[in-house]
Amino acid sequence: MKPINHYILTWQCPDTSGVLAKVSQSLYQHGAFITETSQYSDPYTSIFFSRIAFDDRNLTVSIAQFRQAIAELAQPLAMNFQLRERDDFPNVVIAVSKDDHCLVSLLTKVKAGVLPINVAAVVSNHQDCQALVDWHKIPFHHLPISSSTKEQQESELQALLINYKTDLLVLARYMQILSDDFCQQWQGQAINIHHSFLPSFKGAKPYHQAHQRGVKVIGATAHYITSDLDEGPIIVQEVKAINHSLTIEQMVHSGHDIEATALSHAVRMHAEQRVCLNQGKTVILL
Amino acid sequence: MKPINHYILTWQCPDTSGVLAKVSQSLYQHGAFITETSQYSDPYTSIFFSRIAFDDRNLTVSIAQFRQAIAELAQPLAMNFQLRERDDFPNVVIAVSKDDHCLVSLLTKVKAGVLPINVAAVVSNHQDCQALVDWHKIPFHHLPISSSTKEQQESELQALLINYKTDLLVLARYMQILSDDFCQQWQGQAINIHHSFLPSFKGAKPYHQAHQRGVKVIGATAHYITSDLDEGPIIVQEVKAINHSLTIEQMVHSGHDIEATALSHAVRMHAEQRVCLNQGKTVILL
Amino acid sequence: MKPINHYILTWQCPDTSGVLAKVSQSLYQHGAFITETSQYSDPYTSIFFSRIAFDDRNLTVSIAQFRQAIAELAQPLAMNFQLRERDDFPNVVIAVSKDDHCLVSLLTKVKAGVLPINVAAVVSNHQDCQALVDWHKIPFHHLPISSSTKEQQESELQALLINYKTDLLVLARYMQILSDDFCQQWQGQAINIHHSFLPSFKGAKPYHQAHQRGVKVIGATAHYITSDLDEGPIIVQEVKAINHSLTIEQMVHSGHDIEATALSHAVRMHAEQRVCLNQGKTVILL
Amino acid sequence: MKPINHYILTWQCPDTSGVLAKVSQSLYQHGAFITETSQYSDPYTSIFFSRIAFDDRNLTVSIAQFRQAIAELAQPLAMNFQLRERDDFPNVVIAVSKDDHCLVSLLTKVKAGVLPINVAAVVSNHQDCQALVDWHKIPFHHLPISSSTKEQQESELQALLINYKTDLLVLARYMQILSDDFCQQWQGQAINIHHSFLPSFKGAKPYHQAHQRGVKVIGATAHYITSDLDEGPIIVQEVKAINHSLTIEQMVHSGHDIEATALSHAVRMHAEQRVCLNQGKTVILL
Repeated sequence: MKPINHYILTWQCPDTSGVLAKVSQSLYQHGAFITETSQYSDPYTSIFFSRIAFDDRNLTVSIAQFRQAIAELAQPLAMNFQLRERDDFPNVVIAVSKDDHCLVSLLTKVKAGVLPINVAAVVSNHQDCQALVDWHKIPFHHLPISSSTKEQQESELQALLINYKTDLLVLARYMQILSDDFCQQWQGQAINIHHSFLPSFKGAKPYHQAHQRGVKVIGATAHYITSDLDEGPIIVQEVKAINHSLTIEQMVHSGHDIEATALSHAVRMHAEQRVCLNQGKTVILL
Repeated sequence: MKPINHYILTWQCPDTSGVLAKVSQSLYQHGAFITETSQYSDPYTSIFFSRIAFDDRNLTVSIAQFRQAIAELAQPLAMNFQLRERDDFPNVVIAVSKDDHCLVSLLTKVKAGVLPINVAAVVSNHQDCQALVDWHKIPFHHLPISSSTKEQQESELQALLINYKTDLLVLARYMQILSDDFCQQWQGQAINIHHSFLPSFKGAKPYHQAHQRGVKVIGATAHYITSDLDEGPIIVQEVKAINHSLTIEQMVHSGHDIEATALSHAVRMHAEQRVCLNQGKTVILL
Repeated sequence: MKPINHYILTWQCPDTSGVLAKVSQSLYQHGAFITETSQYSDPYTSIFFSRIAFDDRNLTVSIAQFRQAIAELAQPLAMNFQLRERDDFPNVVIAVSKDDHCLVSLLTKVKAGVLPINVAAVVSNHQDCQALVDWHKIPFHHLPISSSTKEQQESELQALLINYKTDLLVLARYMQILSDDFCQQWQGQAINIHHSFLPSFKGAKPYHQAHQRGVKVIGATAHYITSDLDEGPIIVQEVKAINHSLTIEQMVHSGHDIEATALSHAVRMHAEQRVCLNQGKTVILL
Repeated sequence: MKPINHYILTWQCPDTSGVLAKVSQSLYQHGAFITETSQYSDPYTSIFFSRIAFDDRNLTVSIAQFRQAIAELAQPLAMNFQLRERDDFPNVVIAVSKDDHCLVSLLTKVKAGVLPINVAAVVSNHQDCQALVDWHKIPFHHLPISSSTKEQQESELQALLINYKTDLLVLARYMQILSDDFCQQWQGQAINIHHSFLPSFKGAKPYHQAHQRGVKVIGATAHYITSDLDEGPIIVQEVKAINHSLTIEQMVHSGHDIEATALSHAVRMHAEQRVCLNQGKTVILL
């Protein structure tokens, strides 16, 4: 008996009549067995977003032929589409600095088989996390940074990402500002965790800023990187109530859990092909 | 220039191939301009649920003809469907006892134009809320209950609901147990707010039970009524962190806000035709 | 039998050894029966904050004599203290604009006897809320504003506050910027609700800003007013998860509940004498 | 220069006048420098709970002498008290089954120096977590269970706990029911994480129960174990909003983060000596 393969089809196009009808008709005609479907039509940008999961139990053509059919449909509709096998997990490179709480959360979920990514490598400007990564039998690359080598180091990171055929770069508390060119190139393919509920407390030491301001809720924001620091499209935000009694150090520790949760949730959403870029914002198709 | 009318089409059917294709094709062919679309296919019950909002700016047939087309499509697919004008708000009767916090929340939102229901009347076994209801210029019916008149009172409530062509009965802290027959008859059309996070603390005095158990989170649950008390399909749950220092009275007051919020959110979801019954549970199509 | 009177004693002083011992000793010696006690020592500002609730069932002196004893204790310790009867509710004036959701929440709680304030009057630059206030039999003052009368109007508001012996001014979506002098004068005695999780989205139209930024969590902040707009000490913050599908209008409505909840909670904390100012921040003594 | 030592004094006693005065007076007289103080007087049980953190920078007696002074004070007040050095971390044994997410969270925090416990050993009826524990250089004990060896295995666990001078046993998803005698003996010294918001969904497979019931919020509860399964005093509850689309498996994975967060928070509260037992409930002194 032939094993069943699962696919995810996502597409975005100008919202005109018949888009959903045409695509769902094509899926039906080719025998795609739909298991999940989610759409959103943005009334502000007039873009239509869709994510459809299906399997090939009744598919009457090859997946290559199906892809061709969708491509032909897409062209007159000015539609961008992505079609991939569900279990063809994206290659992810994780960048970290010294703190390991976000990295641990990601690796623990991957090891438990509950986060659909393939961690190709971990890179860091420090060596604090190396032993952990080694234990997970994942390649670790130490790319130290000094003020004079910053540019050179980024080139090495770039080369490494290409070498690993990286689909997604995850900045799991990497704590380094990347160049505009780099951010531009990895647009929509690099997720950062910022330890505040953006847009509050952008930049350095957000918990110090939060403590200074006396907020009663702290947060963490997972977002795509852009050349504007901490201004990229937000994917997930987690928050936590606090009170006056927390010192800055306690606030920092207290935030670890929501940072790890927000980041791993954002990575899952991205890996499941649920996040669409929508002019500086995201649409999450559940 | 002809005003644009908005419609909501919802449907549920056994999940077989082509369902979405056939319906979206029909919408497209008749010129329905889709503004919102949401689907869910339940892998456990194999039921497909869909909600599509559209307008008639390009509709090529009358809405009656369109309804007929959908009806013809529905028959072979064993599909239940509902088609209504978006701005044809459901007729709602609200039942209360003495406490007015849920009632106030509902009426304030209706008055502000942000809750799409038509409050036909308020009924109560007490008179505490009458002045407020009078002020809102909504009919108020006092249906007192004594142990000997309980059955009779329910019949009067029943008659009143029919008289008002009630689409939805909202039990906004009504505090009376209704008969099995009554619950059966209003299945999927009567929403209750229970002041605990069900299934914890069913029945009477849930805050007393919560205080006794020493929980650190309290809750409120809006659900459809069924003949099994507090066992009906859950629509919305709101929760709130508490600590050891709250007295039972403070817990009761502290819960007012989440009760009102959960109930008005559930009523909105129902009124916007977003809630589907799914074998003892609900699917909420956002 | 003499009725029991309840009192709240709060004090702040430089944190030196023996402060708690001296005050609790004095309470004990005079027969104060303590029912609640809460302290906080700020390691950054070295200020000690305390709130003690007690009753006079065993008090061996008059409350005036007890006040005198505390005053004598306070002087060498550089202690500020406040001593009031618990049931001597603060006089509150509520200022509103057109929206009534925060006002309704406050008045409903007061009417239900669960918010320990005395609403002396409601003022507004519009008349939208007058009928509601009239219904609650609370004086309503219409103080319209035009660009040429702004200064004059503020003077009238000022006079009115003094006339009502106002202890607390609550800006329940008043939507007007008050002068620096006014803010200075009512420092620590005027609570505003801002419809964002400050410091995000200060100033006008915060929901529009939030929608533009694409946040996944919206918030509401109750804070004391200061001459720096939206920079005053934060008392309560409430948040709510949202998704991409909310229009700006839906975001605005969706925020009503958290605004009302945050504001009424902050007013309760203030009225129960639980909020202490701590150099631009607050300490909440539960 | 003498290093400063930090201490935590906690006490519980019948709530009578002068308790706080007497203890704070004693602290003052002996030169204890108070840094944190928290009290709670339960109006239902009439028990007074207090936690005071202090250091010895100005202490005029030895800590042994101070302990003696408190002991003398305690006797006539029927006071239980605990006095320990803050940095004398409790010895903790962690018991796990196959899942490692709670264990990882605890060990990661300990390794980062942000959870004040000393992990003496990890025990498990399976070997899945051994490699991780070995990597952390913590003793791992494999105590397999079969139906015929259950009693014997518990005796070995008991012996092992005694051997390690265990102050706290943490059941980090241990998934085994312990005997009444065992629960009795470790009362107030053994924390379990249950993967539901108790009292909902006690016993086995809580996520299956939650899925079946169709709740809109899932939870995790950290509580002291008692001989009544899942009925022990609740320390921390974490919750998370979900929707209809989660399969049971997704619910299980989705709960991992809140389980780990709730458990590590409860362990922190216990380790910082902030949790008091109060007749089947807990008081948390922040």
